Amino acid sequence: MKKLLLNCDMGESFGAWTMGLDDQVMPHVDCANIACGFHASDPGVMRKTVGLALTHGVRIGAHPAYPDLAGFGRRSMQCSPQEVTDMLHYQIGALDGICRAQGGQVSYVKPHGALYNDMMQNPELLRTVMQAVRAYDPAMPLMLLARRDNQPARDLASECGIELLFEAFADRAYDREGYLVARSQPGAVLHDTEQVVAQALKLASGQALTVSDGSELRLDADTLCVHGDNPAAVEAVKQIRAALGRL
Amino acid sequence: MKKLLLNCDMGESFGAWTMGLDDQVMPHVDCANIACGFHASDPGVMRKTVGLALTHGVRIGAHPAYPDLAGFGRRSMQCSPQEVTDMLHYQIGALDGICRAQGGQVSYVKPHGALYNDMMQNPELLRTVMQAVRAYDPAMPLMLLARRDNQPARDLASECGIELLFEAFADRAYDREGYLVARSQPGAVLHDTEQVVAQALKLASGQALTVSDGSELRLDADTLCVHGDNPAAVEAVKQIRAALGRL
Amino acid sequence: MKKLLLNCDMGESFGAWTMGLDDQVMPHVDCANIACGFHASDPGVMRKTVGLALTHGVRIGAHPAYPDLAGFGRRSMQCSPQEVTDMLHYQIGALDGICRAQGGQVSYVKPHGALYNDMMQNPELLRTVMQAVRAYDPAMPLMLLARRDNQPARDLASECGIELLFEAFADRAYDREGYLVARSQPGAVLHDTEQVVAQALKLASGQALTVSDGSELRLDADTLCVHGDNPAAVEAVKQIRAALGRL
Amino acid sequence: MKKLLLNCDMGESFGAWTMGLDDQVMPHVDCANIACGFHASDPGVMRKTVGLALTHGVRIGAHPAYPDLAGFGRRSMQCSPQEVTDMLHYQIGALDGICRAQGGQVSYVKPHGALYNDMMQNPELLRTVMQAVRAYDPAMPLMLLARRDNQPARDLASECGIELLFEAFADRAYDREGYLVARSQPGAVLHDTEQVVAQALKLASGQALTVSDGSELRLDADTLCVHGDNPAAVEAVKQIRAALGRL
Repeated sequence: MKKLLLNCDMGESFGAWTMGLDDQVMPHVDCANIACGFHASDPGVMRKTVGLALTHGVRIGAHPAYPDLAGFGRRSMQCSPQEVTDMLHYQIGALDGICRAQGGQVSYVKPHGALYNDMMQNPELLRTVMQAVRAYDPAMPLMLLARRDNQPARDLASECGIELLFEAFADRAYDREGYLVARSQPGAVLHDTEQVVAQALKLASGQALTVSDGSELRLDADTLCVHGDNPAAVEAVKQIRAALGRL
Repeated sequence: MKKLLLNCDMGESFGAWTMGLDDQVMPHVDCANIACGFHASDPGVMRKTVGLALTHGVRIGAHPAYPDLAGFGRRSMQCSPQEVTDMLHYQIGALDGICRAQGGQVSYVKPHGALYNDMMQNPELLRTVMQAVRAYDPAMPLMLLARRDNQPARDLASECGIELLFEAFADRAYDREGYLVARSQPGAVLHDTEQVVAQALKLASGQALTVSDGSELRLDADTLCVHGDNPAAVEAVKQIRAALGRL
Repeated sequence: MKKLLLNCDMGESFGAWTMGLDDQVMPHVDCANIACGFHASDPGVMRKTVGLALTHGVRIGAHPAYPDLAGFGRRSMQCSPQEVTDMLHYQIGALDGICRAQGGQVSYVKPHGALYNDMMQNPELLRTVMQAVRAYDPAMPLMLLARRDNQPARDLASECGIELLFEAFADRAYDREGYLVARSQPGAVLHDTEQVVAQALKLASGQALTVSDGSELRLDADTLCVHGDNPAAVEAVKQIRAALGRL
Repeated sequence: MKKLLLNCDMGESFGAWTMGLDDQVMPHVDCANIACGFHASDPGVMRKTVGLALTHGVRIGAHPAYPDLAGFGRRSMQCSPQEVTDMLHYQIGALDGICRAQGGQVSYVKPHGALYNDMMQNPELLRTVMQAVRAYDPAMPLMLLARRDNQPARDLASECGIELLFEAFADRAYDREGYLVARSQPGAVLHDTEQVVAQALKLASGQALTVSDGSELRLDADTLCVHGDNPAAVEAVKQIRAALGRL
């Protein structure tokens, strides 16, 4: 049984608007992907989320995005490699500044939303992201999607000189290549906690998942992405934690 | 004759809009106060400005502001001490992230515009800023306005545990307390290069300035704020550099 | 018994963030103050809120604010009269554009948050707002706070040539001049529905309220500001509606 | 000789940043495409530009864009048809509000930058834009790119019930289908005033242009897009005006 870190998107409130049950889910995860102000969060939300992570000994990851608050970073934007590089350094640095004032630091990077999806579809963009992370800190890993075949990403990472953390999802359906089924499709999101825990256990024990076309998919993952949006999601995280911990 | 560092606001372009002759003035200054994206600048402008500063061996300062791009950070905003603290850490960190990717680092902080003015008028806000800078890095100095009496600021800094860099202006008229005469007043800005150079020399040699009400004002400054907005300003910087260098 | 219109702030969601139970409270109010994108809302939220108002035959008011999404328009900003005028026209026009596409129109203006408070404290700013509303549409009323003495505001409005709608609050404590007790003070907000309904009835029937210092305050109001932030607030609106309707 | 209206992008300054010589070029054009705050402009810049247009009797067009100030609206964003519709209504309405306060009104719409390009490449997006303009005002024309074959756009417009204004460029090279050669290509922009005036005359008199692959291109245009970015561009506008006026 492989030890899978649990990672969760956090700090997605903004100004007067609250999103996510960060304080409830933080005690049960290993890694907090904290929004950096471009798709969500603001300096105050970042401070509070960083403080919560430090209290619970949770690793802090930067969760940078395209500059699109109104679209929550979910709309793809045609940015040049240089623009992506610059916005990564700005956002990672901003979160690092917030961390530093509390004695913490950013220890990995996981792009958000459309930037994450674009990077998984476009090897040139993935290379740009890797080089940007490397330029910020050669010891900082990039978190990305585990797919059927992780070798191309590993090769690119090796070439760029950075480490990778592959993530899988316990509550999402996959297609045969290991991409997530789009949320707009029926069955894309698993809502039944038992099913979610079962998928988590399969991923942790190296068993294959049955994917959307009925074929089998084996994913080699380092971490599991979990969610803290609502009480049911938090409950699922606790059960995943318990299940993985038992093994 | 005291050696006065020359500092200049830089990186004030934004997106498609250009402001300042940064590449022309950079070779002649010691310290570049670089905008951090809240009143001006964007990640790309910051990268270019940092690169230019590193090329010329110029010290990089963070130039954080209230979040007000449309108002260029010149409109006072009623922010809480916590909000000011958070926005400082975010902006200093963001610039530090951009620096880090090029092997540089932020080495001082000079607030911009309304935040700067508010801090000089309000000792509680000044304390907030000092504590925020200290929390970011105990060795990082704060740049602020030299006034008739710098002792209150020195006392506060000593209490907060940070260093100060006092700045004076060669091209601005002062009132008797050592505040700048508002730009809306006649004679507030000196446009004659000879006069500007003469004021720089007085400041460097510890001579008193004659201020708006005719009284004398002696300022104890570490650095001189110069401008690179237009060719005449750049020319004045070169002449100040030459004049201070000759002594 | 005076017929008091019920007005409610609406359309305060933004992007992926939800705020307010607009669909639950809309059927029970007369006037919807709709955010215009500067402190809350976005074009999509505005469209949905306008559609909801039109469905329920609710009058649409523009709820313009200082440009401060991160601060929800609650932080005072030092804007010039011209800047305030321009931002009012922009925001009223934007909402009117959204209305027009659905066959509706903006029919009054109520400034939001810090802009509202500043306008109630500063007669020069109030004049600026009145003149801006007048320039947009001479027939468009301005909604503002009913105070102990409405005459100064009436005189100013008469001079500017606009109509006024005075609003009172059923769920807020007042001071002796008729200003709202700051939310930071204990007892500033009434949470007990019975008390809220009782205050609404007093306001509708012209009875005096007992204010924070124990004195009596009689307010001459045209409309009552109600809230739809949470289920209890919505329930209070229904009861106020029922109580005022019975008379 | 067909009378070609001259249209020019205007109001592209933002806050403290100036762009374009609007006051110099305004007297020589017929139509001002005024930025609406999403890619450039702010309420104050819009007021000034509208005032200038009204002074010179120039028709005011809304120049709406994707919400991307930092990218000047030049980066394509994956927005849904509903999002595009809403952002159009918001921006047209905002400019109309500014106009209304000065007794003017928006009289046509020309999308900007990436939104314009996307609309010319994607018939579904073009339909969305047409329907949005129609919903705002059935009498309001949409300005778009004249191409080799305008019939598909005319058919769509007829179906949507709106009028079109086709524009051509005197200072840009075309490809064989009537698309503009990308600015990144050599020869994409004509810098020689004589050449620009000659192309304007060909377009006005219905003569064919020789395009990038050497073939001939005949464009049926109602208006010519001119530029006021710099003194040379303004000079070219004056000469085009004189040349077209002579015929």
